[in-house]
Amino acid sequence: MSAFPFEIHAVDGAARTGTLKTARGDIRTPAFMPVGTAATVKALYPEQVRQAGADILLGNTYHLMLRPGAERIKRLGGLHEFMRWDGPILTDSGGFQVWSLAGLRKLTEEGVEFQSHIDGSKHQLTPERAIEIQADLLGADISMQLDECTNFPCTEDEARASMEMSLRWGQRCKTAFGERSDQALFGIVQGSVLENLRKASAQGLVDAGYDGYAIGGLAVGEGLETMCNVLDFTIPELPDDRPHYLMGVGKPIDLVEAVARGVDMFDCVMPTRSGRHGQAWSDFGPVNLKRAEFAEDAEPLAPEIDCPASRDYSKAYLHHLVRAGEYLAAMLLSWHNVAYYEDLMARMRAAISAGEFDTFAADFRSRWADGQAKRN
Amino acid sequence: MSAFPFEIHAVDGAARTGTLKTARGDIRTPAFMPVGTAATVKALYPEQVRQAGADILLGNTYHLMLRPGAERIKRLGGLHEFMRWDGPILTDSGGFQVWSLAGLRKLTEEGVEFQSHIDGSKHQLTPERAIEIQADLLGADISMQLDECTNFPCTEDEARASMEMSLRWGQRCKTAFGERSDQALFGIVQGSVLENLRKASAQGLVDAGYDGYAIGGLAVGEGLETMCNVLDFTIPELPDDRPHYLMGVGKPIDLVEAVARGVDMFDCVMPTRSGRHGQAWSDFGPVNLKRAEFAEDAEPLAPEIDCPASRDYSKAYLHHLVRAGEYLAAMLLSWHNVAYYEDLMARMRAAISAGEFDTFAADFRSRWADGQAKRN
Repeated sequence: MSAFPFEIHAVDGAARTGTLKTARGDIRTPAFMPVGTAATVKALYPEQVRQAGADILLGNTYHLMLRPGAERIKRLGGLHEFMRWDGPILTDSGGFQVWSLAGLRKLTEEGVEFQSHIDGSKHQLTPERAIEIQADLLGADISMQLDECTNFPCTEDEARASMEMSLRWGQRCKTAFGERSDQALFGIVQGSVLENLRKASAQGLVDAGYDGYAIGGLAVGEGLETMCNVLDFTIPELPDDRPHYLMGVGKPIDLVEAVARGVDMFDCVMPTRSGRHGQAWSDFGPVNLKRAEFAEDAEPLAPEIDCPASRDYSKAYLHHLVRAGEYLAAMLLSWHNVAYYEDLMARMRAAISAGEFDTFAADFRSRWADGQAKRN
Repeated sequence: MSAFPFEIHAVDGAARTGTLKTARGDIRTPAFMPVGTAATVKALYPEQVRQAGADILLGNTYHLMLRPGAERIKRLGGLHEFMRWDGPILTDSGGFQVWSLAGLRKLTEEGVEFQSHIDGSKHQLTPERAIEIQADLLGADISMQLDECTNFPCTEDEARASMEMSLRWGQRCKTAFGERSDQALFGIVQGSVLENLRKASAQGLVDAGYDGYAIGGLAVGEGLETMCNVLDFTIPELPDDRPHYLMGVGKPIDLVEAVARGVDMFDCVMPTRSGRHGQAWSDFGPVNLKRAEFAEDAEPLAPEIDCPASRDYSKAYLHHLVRAGEYLAAMLLSWHNVAYYEDLMARMRAAISAGEFDTFAADFRSRWADGQAKRN
């Protein structure tokens, strides 16, 4: 099955740029998906997310099934109408958040039972329920298979058992999902940081056949070098003609390194979370606006980015807002950060189209290293 | 002196509608000024405040002198440039906030010494310093005289002594302010709730001559009926041809009753403060979006108001955002509330122009009472 055509416009080394064509609009790849955890990209209006350049959002099954509830969202017209986002939405399966609950969950072959972090109520997530919630109730354009995120570090036996269960859960998700013309289902490669397991996972998924392939279980503390390693031996196992999605990643440098290895899609809470903590992202790394050096800095964060938060407000004002704990601090910095991330994706797409991605990546690594050196 | 022409377009009973013409633009009266305490109307972008219909903002001398500091704002180009609001700004003198500090202040004829609520540092505010901060450093279009807010309740002797000192402080403010062609200075009527003192205060101010006349020391617990009483015997003492500004007021019903008695300008934190606490204002009073009855209410708050927050988002979504403690809850509800307040002012201006203010006020009182009855 392949509900959504994926047109690749240019390839430069392992990097590629293209368009994933969904029923709700085109997704330009490489794409960064801002995270709308609880049916809102925190501290942003949906129009701002769109204007910042995002073609698609991510929604969290775990959060939405607990509050306001998937059935309630269905009764209110689905997630798009509920949160006023008419572009495509990808939902995660809830597997990652439930895995994060540690002591509050119980895992069996059938699925996972867990307690709500909000009120302690008991819930169950099976592959079938994960698909019902995502595809039928929320109305996601792209649903993710339910998977188990392997602990890091773990033994090879643990990683294999977990990866194999994720493959079986994927099959059950496929069965539950069936054939749909305007919705897609992605599989998720697991296998910790071990080459043999990652390859076996990828092969199992490819044999089954999905609309796209995600790489899960990374950005959990393994570090950039190890992550790149895993991408180096995993992505060649995936079909070139379907999108590759690196889940939960990451810092700007991570995005550049992953695009260089053939990743097409990303999601991460970092731009909005940093924005709520007084940080602005740049090619030189994070800028902490709380620092006294910005108290009378009349320059904007990034005049070259076509976003009011990046272009029109002085660092001195942002510094004041952060110090005063004002809502507008989080609003402006989250907005800038999403615009910066989307601008970075646009610059990468342009560099790939121009056949200059190596140069772009080398320049970017150099700026990033300069920024790190300055902060140390 | 009268820096700003005040054109009255229509009078209906004691109510009037007009235009106060400042160097930075026209203020349509009766006018509601959203409060930008710390150089931001909380949880709103300046463009939203303007689009909601606000012609003028209020800034707080007390908050701004402590953080980021008035001299710093001056170095950054003044308050308008600092906070990106190019319309008129009225600043209070800091007197009210310092009065609220209770045990942390020391009052003499010279002025008031107080400790910062932020870091305990010591500061002084005199009539001369209040004018320097407002008119010279922040660059306010309308400065307020430094006054002492009388405690409520208090003895007549206390009220008289306080009111007389406010008159003397007003004179010192006038001297410090001098003659300016593009900035205005308003005096403040004090005198607690006592007719003889309010009249003496008003007479003293009118003899001195100000660009506008504020009524201070109300909305401090005296209740709507008493407030109306004070307006009834105070406003006739003020010149008809200068604006009348009721400070720190209030709920929508308070605005209607005050306009009926000849008030032209208001400020209040209520729309934004309520917005941060899950409340939406309406002609029927406050609506608490947290209530379970809104969980699946697909209707918007007020489709007749030309503001996205009032018109485009369902109550069910707002309910969810409030329950989840999301930034967007405060952002949307503050936006709606400011738009509602500005819409209410526009409706009052239209009713006065049409000579139908009595009918408007009667209908409004009826809706307000219905809302109260329903909530009880």
